[in-house]
Amino acid sequence: MTITGYNHIGFSKSAKGQNTFTTFNSKSDLSNDVIHHEATMDEINDAVKLASSCYQTYANTSSENRANFLNTIADEILNLGQSLIDVYCLESSLPQVRAEGERARTIGQIRSFAEYIKSNTHLKYSHESAQSDRIPLPKPSLIKYNVPIGPIVVFGSSNFPFAYSTAGGDTASALAAGCPVIVKSHPMHAGTSELVSNAIIAAAQKCGMPNGVFSNLNSSDHIVGKHLVLHEDIKGVGFTGSIKGGRAIMDLAASRTIPIPVFAEMGSVNPVVLFPKAMQIDGVQWAKSLAQSITLGCGQFCTKPGLIFVFDNDHTNGFINLLGTELSNIGDTPMLHPSICEKFNAGIEYIQNANNVSLIYNRNSNLNNHSLPILASTSFSSFIENHYLHQEIFGPYALVVICENESQLLSCLKKLNGQLSATILSQDLEAKNYNEVIHVLKQISGRLVYNGVPTGVEVAEAMTHGGPYPASSDSRFTAVGVNAIYRWLRPITLQSWPEELM
Amino acid sequence: MTITGYNHIGFSKSAKGQNTFTTFNSKSDLSNDVIHHEATMDEINDAVKLASSCYQTYANTSSENRANFLNTIADEILNLGQSLIDVYCLESSLPQVRAEGERARTIGQIRSFAEYIKSNTHLKYSHESAQSDRIPLPKPSLIKYNVPIGPIVVFGSSNFPFAYSTAGGDTASALAAGCPVIVKSHPMHAGTSELVSNAIIAAAQKCGMPNGVFSNLNSSDHIVGKHLVLHEDIKGVGFTGSIKGGRAIMDLAASRTIPIPVFAEMGSVNPVVLFPKAMQIDGVQWAKSLAQSITLGCGQFCTKPGLIFVFDNDHTNGFINLLGTELSNIGDTPMLHPSICEKFNAGIEYIQNANNVSLIYNRNSNLNNHSLPILASTSFSSFIENHYLHQEIFGPYALVVICENESQLLSCLKKLNGQLSATILSQDLEAKNYNEVIHVLKQISGRLVYNGVPTGVEVAEAMTHGGPYPASSDSRFTAVGVNAIYRWLRPITLQSWPEELM
Repeated sequence: MTITGYNHIGFSKSAKGQNTFTTFNSKSDLSNDVIHHEATMDEINDAVKLASSCYQTYANTSSENRANFLNTIADEILNLGQSLIDVYCLESSLPQVRAEGERARTIGQIRSFAEYIKSNTHLKYSHESAQSDRIPLPKPSLIKYNVPIGPIVVFGSSNFPFAYSTAGGDTASALAAGCPVIVKSHPMHAGTSELVSNAIIAAAQKCGMPNGVFSNLNSSDHIVGKHLVLHEDIKGVGFTGSIKGGRAIMDLAASRTIPIPVFAEMGSVNPVVLFPKAMQIDGVQWAKSLAQSITLGCGQFCTKPGLIFVFDNDHTNGFINLLGTELSNIGDTPMLHPSICEKFNAGIEYIQNANNVSLIYNRNSNLNNHSLPILASTSFSSFIENHYLHQEIFGPYALVVICENESQLLSCLKKLNGQLSATILSQDLEAKNYNEVIHVLKQISGRLVYNGVPTGVEVAEAMTHGGPYPASSDSRFTAVGVNAIYRWLRPITLQSWPEELM
Repeated sequence: MTITGYNHIGFSKSAKGQNTFTTFNSKSDLSNDVIHHEATMDEINDAVKLASSCYQTYANTSSENRANFLNTIADEILNLGQSLIDVYCLESSLPQVRAEGERARTIGQIRSFAEYIKSNTHLKYSHESAQSDRIPLPKPSLIKYNVPIGPIVVFGSSNFPFAYSTAGGDTASALAAGCPVIVKSHPMHAGTSELVSNAIIAAAQKCGMPNGVFSNLNSSDHIVGKHLVLHEDIKGVGFTGSIKGGRAIMDLAASRTIPIPVFAEMGSVNPVVLFPKAMQIDGVQWAKSLAQSITLGCGQFCTKPGLIFVFDNDHTNGFINLLGTELSNIGDTPMLHPSICEKFNAGIEYIQNANNVSLIYNRNSNLNNHSLPILASTSFSSFIENHYLHQEIFGPYALVVICENESQLLSCLKKLNGQLSATILSQDLEAKNYNEVIHVLKQISGRLVYNGVPTGVEVAEAMTHGGPYPASSDSRFTAVGVNAIYRWLRPITLQSWPEELM
């Protein structure tokens, strides 16, 4: 299937703009061929107008019809076959096996929302009967259920071209809720986004969904996104990406005459606490698992374990060296984009020059846009003093923080911002002796992992992918699992409503 | 029981500040005696420090113990007996029967949260078992449940000294969730707030709740509230009041380094649509009901019907005159406070001088701080043109808007902001002929009433008291009913968690 570089304005393709950009292949260090057209103000307004004008029709489709639409999107994505996988790999420099795995995850996500809404669970329908003889006042009948909040803007993420982009969790949950969606495609994989958009539009047309239920707009800078977030007919925003980007969107949304909800899933360092017995007895196993987790997807995951807290004892140096050796066995890997590699290099350069931070080994990739895993270690006091060390460095890097005792560990954990996840590694339930540590980790994170790694977020109803700011903009919701639909629904109550009007 | 004018900093009473104020009796036009001390920065910080330091302990209390605490608060409020009712009436100028009714509602609300959490429904506990043999990857076990988000600030409202103030819905739901609460008492009824705070503190001590679970701070301006909203240890805000006040708090919360959720329930004009047959056949009944609803609590309700849409036909003038007569039968009524009466008078003065707005009768109260009900009418075109006419005037006032046809009515409704409620009055199901009207009302409001009045919000699980901005800051939540607890809870997932650590 040919990629045109056009925007999808509902069922039409459009390229009115003179500003263009191309995607880039980090591996070959070459631009990709297709020329993508930035959406113009007219195209933005047309997409929003279509979304807004079809909102009533789409909101009133039956859950069964929307489920069918979602399943057809999944089918159409699969129908794109190898051509979609090829473009994904070309634009992200991620390997084919990852592309296939992420596609399967995306398809699974879409189908899970279809399944969830089929039974109308998401309506949370409840009914209380009238009590006309109640003293002192009669009680009216009350019927409560959820309605979609309106057209939603979804920002594609750089690191999940399928699962958190065009037809990812935000789009699938919003469409499932009954909200039209406008995607601001991620400029690093605009071609992938166009193909996936073709699949969504094909599904919409096959299923008789209204024109405007979905649009896909290209942009390589912030202007298109800004206009979308500020447009009065947009009623909510989904975002996956950096803290800086997410916060900018939150601030824009809060500045509107009519503020709208934003669910931004942002950065996280995902602290891991390795308790002493686990280090001593299972150190080899945890070094292997952590090295894999730190470097999965070249460390470009929001759940990458970026901080590993250990206690100082006879086994500490041995463990750190084990982990270092595991990481040093991993070779040059292309990052998603030169700009991401630049930021990673800048972060690592800081670490290399930071006071009292030791590099376990020190090597930088000689290949353009490629990285090599980096492991560093520091002491309790250096960590406490240096706020920069608490921040995420996006890429294959982790910092081991060596604490003398539980009190130091607690001080470190209390310095951390909100987290998507926190992990404890514990031998023979030794974690039982660290209640306060577990309590603090619960306070700062959305998910606690016991004897595992934080990467590989299970797509399940009982998953929480979110957490206190800045892990997410609103810790009361999740971005993964069917409960993600509640970001786009609000309750309405019908009082004394006659059945004939239902 | 004596009122001291002191702040409650946890279990201690404190009056370090030199700035003082008194409450006011609108009816007698005299200040009340007690001198209330504004909270100082030290007192604010002490209250937050206590709340923050007891958060872990309080969050870990069993739901049963918290339910007992809530029920004991209800008992202690009732134990205050007539002295509480007297202070309420002295500070609000509302009649005793209202004070008693609102107390009963408040007690009912508190006990409903106690009942709801007893069964741990609010935890939304879910568990998915591990599948170690799943292909291609094993599935970890997942346990998901809700945890309290942290210390909450509640702003007391002017018009509900009991039900939406010190021990009102926001406080009761936050305490039920496991969040410590700091109330910024409303300066118009600081004495009532002190007495209710005494009851809450007595209950906390009787039930062994930690010091800091509740504090009550006085302030007659915005400084105390501002410091509370910006304090880094505050994790959420509940507010009931004006759009201006609510928006100021939303903006402060959004400006924080770590933004926090605000649930602000703000103003609403609560449009009523009177369909032609209902006007013709039931006009007398609806004129009586609407007059009562417009003047209930001297019109000082967020659900007061402020706009009544009618169609122009032979019966229209008759209905307007009927409604005017009903309203003109109601005499001078003291408003909550001179400042509220001033704002009401300013709004009415605008209406009296507005182009193409007719006063059905024209009289202003000659008594200080008192008002008389005002009814005005205008045409479709004047309404569309004048944005001011779409706004709430807090007090016993309503505007009848006369439309020529459904299309004009729809244009008017589409001009309206988000609403707490919308009402349709329909004879013999004539509303069936106005599907588009019902659809638009659903889009803009949190609650639709059929053949009733919007005042008198039923406290029930199926109630929605909220709605699109500016009715509330976040339409996905409700301020009334047990679901109000979800404003203060966030999910957390435990992955592969051993039972021994639960």
